[in-house]
Amino acid sequence: MRMVDIIHSKRDGQELTDNEIQFFVEGYTKGEIPDYQASAFMMAVYFQGMTARETAVLTQAMVDSGETIDLSAIEGHKVDKHSTGGVGDKVTFIVGPLVASAGVPVAKMSGRGLGHTGGTLDKLEAISGLQIEMSKEQFIENVNKHKLAVAGQTGNLAPADKKLYALRDVTATVEAIPLIAGSIMSKKLASGADSIVLDVKTGSGAFMKTLEDSESLAKEMVAIGNNLGRKTVAIISDMNQPLGYEVGNANEIKEAAAILQGADVPDLRELSLEIASHMTVLADAFSDYAEARKTLEENIGNGKAFDAFRSFIEAQGGDVSMIDDTDKLPQAKHHIDVLSDEEGFVSEIDAESIGVAAMYLGAGRATKDDEINHAVGITLKKKIGDAVQKGDVLVTLHADTETPEDSIQKVKQAYRFSQEKTERPILIHKVITE
Amino acid sequence: MRMVDIIHSKRDGQELTDNEIQFFVEGYTKGEIPDYQASAFMMAVYFQGMTARETAVLTQAMVDSGETIDLSAIEGHKVDKHSTGGVGDKVTFIVGPLVASAGVPVAKMSGRGLGHTGGTLDKLEAISGLQIEMSKEQFIENVNKHKLAVAGQTGNLAPADKKLYALRDVTATVEAIPLIAGSIMSKKLASGADSIVLDVKTGSGAFMKTLEDSESLAKEMVAIGNNLGRKTVAIISDMNQPLGYEVGNANEIKEAAAILQGADVPDLRELSLEIASHMTVLADAFSDYAEARKTLEENIGNGKAFDAFRSFIEAQGGDVSMIDDTDKLPQAKHHIDVLSDEEGFVSEIDAESIGVAAMYLGAGRATKDDEINHAVGITLKKKIGDAVQKGDVLVTLHADTETPEDSIQKVKQAYRFSQEKTERPILIHKVITE
Repeated sequence: MRMVDIIHSKRDGQELTDNEIQFFVEGYTKGEIPDYQASAFMMAVYFQGMTARETAVLTQAMVDSGETIDLSAIEGHKVDKHSTGGVGDKVTFIVGPLVASAGVPVAKMSGRGLGHTGGTLDKLEAISGLQIEMSKEQFIENVNKHKLAVAGQTGNLAPADKKLYALRDVTATVEAIPLIAGSIMSKKLASGADSIVLDVKTGSGAFMKTLEDSESLAKEMVAIGNNLGRKTVAIISDMNQPLGYEVGNANEIKEAAAILQGADVPDLRELSLEIASHMTVLADAFSDYAEARKTLEENIGNGKAFDAFRSFIEAQGGDVSMIDDTDKLPQAKHHIDVLSDEEGFVSEIDAESIGVAAMYLGAGRATKDDEINHAVGITLKKKIGDAVQKGDVLVTLHADTETPEDSIQKVKQAYRFSQEKTERPILIHKVITE
Repeated sequence: MRMVDIIHSKRDGQELTDNEIQFFVEGYTKGEIPDYQASAFMMAVYFQGMTARETAVLTQAMVDSGETIDLSAIEGHKVDKHSTGGVGDKVTFIVGPLVASAGVPVAKMSGRGLGHTGGTLDKLEAISGLQIEMSKEQFIENVNKHKLAVAGQTGNLAPADKKLYALRDVTATVEAIPLIAGSIMSKKLASGADSIVLDVKTGSGAFMKTLEDSESLAKEMVAIGNNLGRKTVAIISDMNQPLGYEVGNANEIKEAAAILQGADVPDLRELSLEIASHMTVLADAFSDYAEARKTLEENIGNGKAFDAFRSFIEAQGGDVSMIDDTDKLPQAKHHIDVLSDEEGFVSEIDAESIGVAAMYLGAGRATKDDEINHAVGITLKKKIGDAVQKGDVLVTLHADTETPEDSIQKVKQAYRFSQEKTERPILIHKVITE
């Protein structure tokens, strides 16, 4: 078998065999197939696509290229969630405790990564003392006991995907839907959950800007999961503005805690309940969505969800008083109100610009050596559809410098106004189950 | 400027600027742009194509990547020819003397290369004593005096093309017509001729199997030549069977000498006159094709064409007696007739298989360290349209081994028969002038 022939076949629109796909992934991971063949192949896939079978085989081969996490020592049906990423997305901190409150185990492996704010681990580390490094035994014990644990991803999961992703990034082959789907799913599958709920973002602040592309990606991922024996559901949710009001690290933990205690933050509470309900249904904790939804709402009202959050934090050494009283979370030195120069109704909030503004404040990492500042962030005071007068506060910046000019400019650029009343975007566009 | 953005633009079907194309070619030649970006770019070009302007800029950039040959010290309008390659193609040895006999200078730089038979230089070296290495001054003096010289290509012509071609070969991106056209033309343009006649082969034995593809390639190359200030004409000629009767090195020199002395080998004489006529018209030696054709035919009849061949060989130290009496050319030890097992009319002769059979005998190089055997080769006794009885000789193998089984098998595989009378293929399909 020669790689040049495999590229040739794909270029000409032929369907590849399992062997050919495995030959490519194994050879590339071992360095036997050079980057220049892999990049030509990726470009051919960009143009010719892959069938559902090809994509599943590619994904499985990427899983097989590295270690996989064995969660069999955890009792019950393990569910995981994954979001394709957006600004202000603190849903993980809400659905984890919600699902745990229904007795369904959530064994979450997370990374740090680059971005506008820190990753899941960084955000959690806003809570003093909270440890995300632990032995495998400790991790499993915590999940069994508290139904929820979050740990740093160790292990060399899907190294083929890591290597391919780095190559695609510099060869303009990122935007191929089967490759995006395979990349995301290979890491999820290697993490060992039995079922997966995917939150696929759509809109100006999402990687997928159009509903059509988001739906294609969602369908590809659900097909991969189902083809490879994991129950998978995808929710297509809106990212035409940041999710909730808070962006940052401590800020987002604070808002998550509020939701778990019953606060009704538009969009954020709804999306969290939607995702958590699907997760518990996949785990067979409830017979249907309506029953799941009802119980999870009750678990917010009766304190069980917040208790699950507390006991998870406590088990990992975190200072629970910081979520009992979120004013104890790290606080920035300055609180700067950014005022509107215009009037009208908010018609757009470019999430990307809000994210960049937060990164300028120090909330995220531009390079992997950057330090995260847990205290800084942004509180949105106006969202799409809100009426604004000149001089109204659009956002409050939580900054450690007195006049963060670049962040102020970015925030102002993010807001667009209309003279006519605008509607809030639809939050949940679709639920894809097959 | 970043290469990833250039790949992205081409991938999305945008037209690249001159600067972007030059940035790519210069950066890749210097090793500043890695292979994996170049191969992804080539695959994007495969799918999205290039405009005539883009292709011309690419070609000029490849010319500019290396040395160019300055032929200005040669008097008159220099014409060159190029063939896209076929089996039994000894046209160069016929058109060179023909054009020279009309007083038009031909300064031919050739390579050796891999292939079923040797390249132009290898074939010439079947003539004892003939030198193809000479100083630039000697080369120019020879052309000025004899209107024809053939030398080994020294100089680092179009290194960007060499590097890109090697990459395309292993990434399934050879078959992109703008890239093929640019590759061929960059070498021709760097060789310094004022005008170029291209012989684009079409058919089962050609790189381009269909007339449509051959015509696209021809048009692209003519457009590049004309865009870059060289008068360029392309002839689309048939390669559904080997050209002429002889395949090999000494064999082909022998057949060329015969044509120059008036032999009427079907196809070979016609194609040679066609190409030579266009060359002399481009050089303004004649007012039109008809006049050129008439004079060149006369030059065969009156011996001027063969004299030009002789004086070129003599000037380069070759033993002229070998072409005066071609039995003196290197002779193989054995002459083996391959007989037909079938009867009917020849309907197909797969040129590729005949070429491989010749290579098995030792006529060509599979790797660059292989030695050429000038004596071995194949004489076709039957061509498309000929009637064949069982036991008739299809070909005679000139071999240095007694029973070259693999060559015999290959030859038999090459021939196909029909029970109905078949027509000879059309020899010249089209002449492309713009």
